[in-house]
Amino acid sequence: MRKERTIYFILRTLLQGKTSYWNLIRENDTVLPEFISTLKELVDGGYVAADEEGLLYLTEKGKEYAEKLGIRAYVDPVCDHCKGKTVVIKEEYKPLYEEFLKIAKDRPKAITAFDQGYVTPEDTIRRVLLMHRFGDVENKRILILGDDDLTSIALALTGLPKEILVLEIDERLINFINKVAEERGWTNVKAMTYDARYPFSDDIQRQYDTFVTDPVETVKGISLFLSRCIQGLKGEGSAGYFGLTHIEASRKKWHQIQRNLLDMNLVITDIIRRFSDYALENEDIVKEDLNFRVYTEAPVKVNFPDAYFYTSNMYRVELIGDPKPIFDGKVEWERDLYLDDEAYVTAEKESHE
Amino acid sequence: MRKERTIYFILRTLLQGKTSYWNLIRENDTVLPEFISTLKELVDGGYVAADEEGLLYLTEKGKEYAEKLGIRAYVDPVCDHCKGKTVVIKEEYKPLYEEFLKIAKDRPKAITAFDQGYVTPEDTIRRVLLMHRFGDVENKRILILGDDDLTSIALALTGLPKEILVLEIDERLINFINKVAEERGWTNVKAMTYDARYPFSDDIQRQYDTFVTDPVETVKGISLFLSRCIQGLKGEGSAGYFGLTHIEASRKKWHQIQRNLLDMNLVITDIIRRFSDYALENEDIVKEDLNFRVYTEAPVKVNFPDAYFYTSNMYRVELIGDPKPIFDGKVEWERDLYLDDEAYVTAEKESHE
Repeated sequence: MRKERTIYFILRTLLQGKTSYWNLIRENDTVLPEFISTLKELVDGGYVAADEEGLLYLTEKGKEYAEKLGIRAYVDPVCDHCKGKTVVIKEEYKPLYEEFLKIAKDRPKAITAFDQGYVTPEDTIRRVLLMHRFGDVENKRILILGDDDLTSIALALTGLPKEILVLEIDERLINFINKVAEERGWTNVKAMTYDARYPFSDDIQRQYDTFVTDPVETVKGISLFLSRCIQGLKGEGSAGYFGLTHIEASRKKWHQIQRNLLDMNLVITDIIRRFSDYALENEDIVKEDLNFRVYTEAPVKVNFPDAYFYTSNMYRVELIGDPKPIFDGKVEWERDLYLDDEAYVTAEKESHE
Repeated sequence: MRKERTIYFILRTLLQGKTSYWNLIRENDTVLPEFISTLKELVDGGYVAADEEGLLYLTEKGKEYAEKLGIRAYVDPVCDHCKGKTVVIKEEYKPLYEEFLKIAKDRPKAITAFDQGYVTPEDTIRRVLLMHRFGDVENKRILILGDDDLTSIALALTGLPKEILVLEIDERLINFINKVAEERGWTNVKAMTYDARYPFSDDIQRQYDTFVTDPVETVKGISLFLSRCIQGLKGEGSAGYFGLTHIEASRKKWHQIQRNLLDMNLVITDIIRRFSDYALENEDIVKEDLNFRVYTEAPVKVNFPDAYFYTSNMYRVELIGDPKPIFDGKVEWERDLYLDDEAYVTAEKESHE
C-alpha cells in the first residue's frame, strides 16, 4: 500500500518534466531505504531512466505506465509566497533577517563528527516567527538543546525573549554564540557545554517556557532529547519545537515517537510539512565526502545535490501538565541512540556493513 | 500557566486596536469556557472594556498592564497570500472553485438539529487541494462520513477520484448530492443514509483509500467517527482528514484524542492551524437563535459575529498497518457522545442547566 504512494509521487513529479534524484526525494514523503528500492525497481523495470546529466525522466514505457495508472498533469497548489510554510519574512522582519545573515556568515562550519548541515538562514528566521506567532517568544525563557542553526541568535535579535540558554556539545558553537552575545551586549543569552547523556542540573530544571531542539532521528534518541528538554519546562502550557524528517523517519517511526510524546505529557499542536530546508549541498564536507548511503545506494549515477532534498517537518508540542520524561537518569551513549536503519543521510556506508 | 497564554493573546490582539469579541476568539487558541472566564476577569478587573458598538479595547489600566508584562506591538508573520493555510486556489483551480460556488448556492441550509454551520466554499476547495497535494485524491476511492461541507461535490468536480461514497444522516444532503451527481452524470458518486451508531456493512469495509469527516468534538464521539472511518480503509498508507477546533476542544482533550488515534494505528502526519473557517455568521439560524453559550455567557454585550470565530485545525492521519477501531459494534446514541462541557458553540444554554 505505502509503496503505491511512493510510486505515485515519483511518477507525478516526473510527469512534470525531467528532474534530479534530489528533487524526487524532496517531493516524496517516504523514508529513504524504501524510496531508493522503489526507484530502483522503476529504473530496473525500464520505466525511469537517467540522462547524461544525471537527470531522471519517464521512458515511453514509464509514460504508458503513468497513463495506465491514470496519473495526470499536476498543478501544485502549495502557496508560492510562503512555500506552504505558513509564515513569511515580511517587510518589518527584513532587518532581523539581514542582521542574522551578517552574523551567521562567520559561523563555524558544520563538521561530520557532529552533524552534516543546518537549516537555511531564511528558515531559521521563519522558525522564530512561527514561535512568535504561537506566543512562545515574547518575555519567555527559552531553552535550546543543540543549536546548529543559531536559533539563539535569531531569537536574541528580535529583542523579545526574557532569557535564552543554549546547551551544546560543540565547543566551537558555544564559543561563537557567547562571543556574539558579548559583542552585542546580550546579557540574557548564554551557551554552555552539555552532553545529553546526563540529566539537567537542578538550576535548569522547571525554569523555561519554551524549548527548541533538532534531535537525532532514532526513537530512542529523540525520546532522550525531548525528555531532557521537558525537564527544563515550567509546566502546563509550556511549549516546544523540533523537526522530524520523512527521509530518515518512516511513518511507523513517527507513530512510535508520537506515542512517546503523549507519554511525556506533551500534546502535538502543529505539524507543518516541509518547514525547514537543510543547506546540505552548500557544505564542503558533503561535496568532499560522498560516502553517505543516500549517494552510495542511489540506483542511478547522481550529481551533487541541486535541490534541498533534506527537509524536515516542524512539530510544536505543548505540556498538558507536569513534564513526564521517559529518560530520567544518565544513559550510555550507545550506537542505537543515534543511528538506525533509516539513517541514510546522516550515516556513512561502512557503518552499516 | 495556560491562562497566562490566554491573557497574552487577548492583550496582544487588543494592542493592535479595537476588535470584536469574535475576533478575539479567533486569535486565541483556548477552549471557550477558559477563554470566557479569562476575558471576564480582565473586564471585571477594569483592563478591558467594550464601547457602544460592542468592540473591545484596552483601558488605560489595561495598557499599563500590557506594558508591565512587556508586550509590544505585534506584526503578524502569517502569510497574507494563503493565510497560513499552506495551499491556495491558483489560476488553474479557479474554474473548479467557480463551479463549486454555482452548485453550492442551492445547497440545503444548515439546521440546528444536525449542525450549526459549514466550512466556507473557499476552504472546502482548499481542503480538496490539500488532499491532492498529499496524494490522496487522484484515482482514489474516497469515503466521506458526514458531508455538510459538500466535499464530495468539490472532489467530484476535480474529475480525479475513482469513487466517492458519502455516508450521511441528513436526508436533504443525501438527496442534494445524489441529484447533483445525476445531473452531472457522475456515476462514481453516491450518497446514502448512515447512522454512526451502527458499524459499516460488509461492502464498505476495507474498500477505501481516503476518508474525510468532520466529527463531533467529544473524545468519545470523535473516536467513534474515526473508528467507523478506518473500518472503511484498505490498510497501510490509507489516509484520513478531519478538523478539530481549539474553542470546543482543550489541549487536554486533544491529548486524549491523539492517544486514541495512535491506538487505532493512525499516525498524525500534518496538523495545519486554523485551516478551516466556518461560515456560522451567514446562517440565519444563528442570527435567530442566540441561545448558544458562546453568546449567553459572553462577559460583555456582543453583536452578531463579524469574524470567522469558529475555526478548525486540519488533521491528516495515515494508517501504519491494519485499522484498529476502538468502537466495533453498535453503540447507544447517548448524550456524552456528542456533548461535553467544552461545547459552547454547538450546545444551547438550557441543555447545560
